[in-house]
Amino acid sequence: MSNAYATLVASFTKLYRYQHLASMVAWDQAAMMPSKGNDARGAAMAELAVLLHETLTAPHLAAAFEAAKTEAADPMEAASVREMTRQWRTANLLPASLVEAKSLAGTRCEHAWRTQRKANDWKGFLDNWRPVVECARQEATLLAEATGLSRYDALVDRFEPGMTSSVIEPMFADLKRWLPPLIQEVVAKQKSEEVVTPKGPFAIEAQRALGLEIMGLLGFDFDAGRLDVSTHPFCGGVAEDVRITTRYSDGDFVQAMMGVVHETGHARYEQRLPREWVHLPLGQARSMGIHESQSLSFEMQLGRSRPFLTLIAPLVRKHLGDQPAFEVENLARIYTRVRPGLIRTESDELTYPMHVILRFEIERALIEGEIQPEDVPGLWDEKMAAYLGADTRGNYRDGCLQDIHWTDGSFGYFPSYTLGAMYAAQYFATIRAQMPDLDTRIAAGELAPIFSWLEEKIWSQGSRWSTPELVERATGAPLSASHFERHLRSRYL
Amino acid sequence: MSNAYATLVASFTKLYRYQHLASMVAWDQAAMMPSKGNDARGAAMAELAVLLHETLTAPHLAAAFEAAKTEAADPMEAASVREMTRQWRTANLLPASLVEAKSLAGTRCEHAWRTQRKANDWKGFLDNWRPVVECARQEATLLAEATGLSRYDALVDRFEPGMTSSVIEPMFADLKRWLPPLIQEVVAKQKSEEVVTPKGPFAIEAQRALGLEIMGLLGFDFDAGRLDVSTHPFCGGVAEDVRITTRYSDGDFVQAMMGVVHETGHARYEQRLPREWVHLPLGQARSMGIHESQSLSFEMQLGRSRPFLTLIAPLVRKHLGDQPAFEVENLARIYTRVRPGLIRTESDELTYPMHVILRFEIERALIEGEIQPEDVPGLWDEKMAAYLGADTRGNYRDGCLQDIHWTDGSFGYFPSYTLGAMYAAQYFATIRAQMPDLDTRIAAGELAPIFSWLEEKIWSQGSRWSTPELVERATGAPLSASHFERHLRSRYL
Repeated sequence: MSNAYATLVASFTKLYRYQHLASMVAWDQAAMMPSKGNDARGAAMAELAVLLHETLTAPHLAAAFEAAKTEAADPMEAASVREMTRQWRTANLLPASLVEAKSLAGTRCEHAWRTQRKANDWKGFLDNWRPVVECARQEATLLAEATGLSRYDALVDRFEPGMTSSVIEPMFADLKRWLPPLIQEVVAKQKSEEVVTPKGPFAIEAQRALGLEIMGLLGFDFDAGRLDVSTHPFCGGVAEDVRITTRYSDGDFVQAMMGVVHETGHARYEQRLPREWVHLPLGQARSMGIHESQSLSFEMQLGRSRPFLTLIAPLVRKHLGDQPAFEVENLARIYTRVRPGLIRTESDELTYPMHVILRFEIERALIEGEIQPEDVPGLWDEKMAAYLGADTRGNYRDGCLQDIHWTDGSFGYFPSYTLGAMYAAQYFATIRAQMPDLDTRIAAGELAPIFSWLEEKIWSQGSRWSTPELVERATGAPLSASHFERHLRSRYL
Repeated sequence: MSNAYATLVASFTKLYRYQHLASMVAWDQAAMMPSKGNDARGAAMAELAVLLHETLTAPHLAAAFEAAKTEAADPMEAASVREMTRQWRTANLLPASLVEAKSLAGTRCEHAWRTQRKANDWKGFLDNWRPVVECARQEATLLAEATGLSRYDALVDRFEPGMTSSVIEPMFADLKRWLPPLIQEVVAKQKSEEVVTPKGPFAIEAQRALGLEIMGLLGFDFDAGRLDVSTHPFCGGVAEDVRITTRYSDGDFVQAMMGVVHETGHARYEQRLPREWVHLPLGQARSMGIHESQSLSFEMQLGRSRPFLTLIAPLVRKHLGDQPAFEVENLARIYTRVRPGLIRTESDELTYPMHVILRFEIERALIEGEIQPEDVPGLWDEKMAAYLGADTRGNYRDGCLQDIHWTDGSFGYFPSYTLGAMYAAQYFATIRAQMPDLDTRIAAGELAPIFSWLEEKIWSQGSRWSTPELVERATGAPLSASHFERHLRSRYL
């Protein structure tokens, strides 16, 4: 290890430890914290954000980065320096005052949103949200000036390095062409299908036990993580201690159960990241799109498939009692039911991309300054009507207030969901080509081959490769939306 | 506010925010964290301990403290500077390397202890404990050299400012004189009393619901705190978000219920500390002895009293069902049952001080270098036999491995428990003198006068006064053990 590299490793190890604190108190804030704790928590998190920023912008790092570039290094060290440099450059473009203001505004807005959403209080939300948008635009402008990217693309780059609107827009335009007719075709086809609605109530404790058993089946390591409850389900914590959450309704187990499958996909990626680099950017998840590709491999490719539902139907009966709705055929109909709706997180595999495209278009325009925060509900109504034939007028709760992402300024994240769905379809096309009897194996509970493939190709690679390299090494070809389209047509037609 | 004072306030505000993070991840470690998360947590906590130490030892603070001493200041500012100075002086005597080593050794030892205690594994524990003791001795030596205190007293001073062995030893010698005969007398008297044992099992969820209802009765603010479970019950978190824990056994609700009353006493102190100084040492709890005086006011003065048990007996029946053991007379006998036993936290009000005196004598000798870590079990056996007539030979689990305090180096804490019991007895003697019908009020659920007295005299005062001043302002007289003795004789004879 060169001297310069050792200096960088020491600083990034410190950052990793500070980041541990940040992740844990963020999880606590969402899953455990009582309401009156929020001001003190917000102040502590903002102070920590400043500290993280100061650590990453310490003047002595510039010389270490300069030296590390020229000193002889093996390819792994070079990759490690490359990933450190990405984080360092971004941080050094942002003044500490902006970092603190952004953290404070985001914490305040997100916390108030938890009650404002329930109260359908758009006006109250807007007051807290304006400073969040303002901070995000300042950040976007600074990042755009330095990178030559557009302002929105500069924000996307934080979540999906190398991805720009010039790639996303044609792909989304393509989806907008063939997906709405496909949705209509499937909706028409499903009209004649009878779906038996599961009869609740389903005790929360029984739902939790079912979720835990499915997590076990999916290989979640319970000595290195937990399952809890939060308003907006997420996967948090740290690689050594992964905290996933879900939300229960005693009238419906369908969403919570598949939510657990989804978050377990995120969790296994974190739990199996390369432990020898856990303290360095090199050992972290490649991108948010790749992260979503794991949750969607678990939820969409595996979880909603007939063989997987065959495998877990006995568990559903074990925990929730027997009823006709729990027949495999009926569960499969429930989990592939296509019905345009208002809520992204409750939407089906076919309509989900349309929710994403709507958000992408609005947040891109918002960050580029083409629209203002107060324009969002109107645009939302208009696009929901056009893309999914739905009416959200006056219904902010189930409209533009439904997601957590915008409340704390995570603009540029939404495209990752649909990129992830495309990556996942491509992985499974690859696995299937190597393993023609995959469905038989899944139904028999033989999931290990899938996890081995994901571990070898994705999890164990951390941030060793760029996203395009990672995908091509894993699947033998660059990302192509064709696998996603084939997967949807094969499952739904 | 003077410039120098403003500089100090800025630094201590930052410390308060960092301390928020430290408190929350410590709570999480004890109440939530899965086992494989511990190494990363330990590293993060040690890094944070170094940061806290660096912040408190920043060179520019020396000049600010010097200037703040001479600049004109109102009495409140003077008290604030006095409390800042206490923390600053202690920190500046310890090198960062020792702070980090101590945190790492303590985290490791405490975590392993959780399983070693169960396994009765003294040898395994001893390996981890030697470095903890070594760090504590180094700390004690450095503090002693600077303060002129003995090494042990220098550690006591961290928890109970101004208290020394020269005060504690005569008080404990006095207790050792009259308490063992009193214990024997009470045990003999209680021989003829019939106590009906409550018949379990008691569902954990029902016990939890009972605990929550009692917390409500005791004024706990659930929007500013939580009740959870940990191996060793404690009160943690921050003033704005107080986290108390208990531990349940489905065969016995007696300990868990009164444990909740105890921790609620700690919690109310924290929840009602003066909010305008919450970010400064001035707004923090006065001392550990005063903290224990709150939990023991709740548990011993209030909780185990017949009028309080009259008040909560209907709640016990509501949550756990009706049975003869839940008659008030019987509950009172259970909660005042004196029976020398092995476990401090499960011991009664009369034998508890003997457990404390035993620990005080051992840890004093250990820190002063008169004995070594390997001598502890032998001494423990000897003193348990002498003070309580109990045999702990070979039973480390219920002997010297039973407490969390020594595992992370909190030597000097134990005397606070018995000092707290004495303060609490003196408060209630004072309240009773002003309110002769106190028992009638308690039985009727009229607890507000007690809370008002505690809030006015103790909680709202933070660290405004020294401990002796605080006690004398509250009760009109300096601490005297006579109130404690009178309380015990009146309750038990």
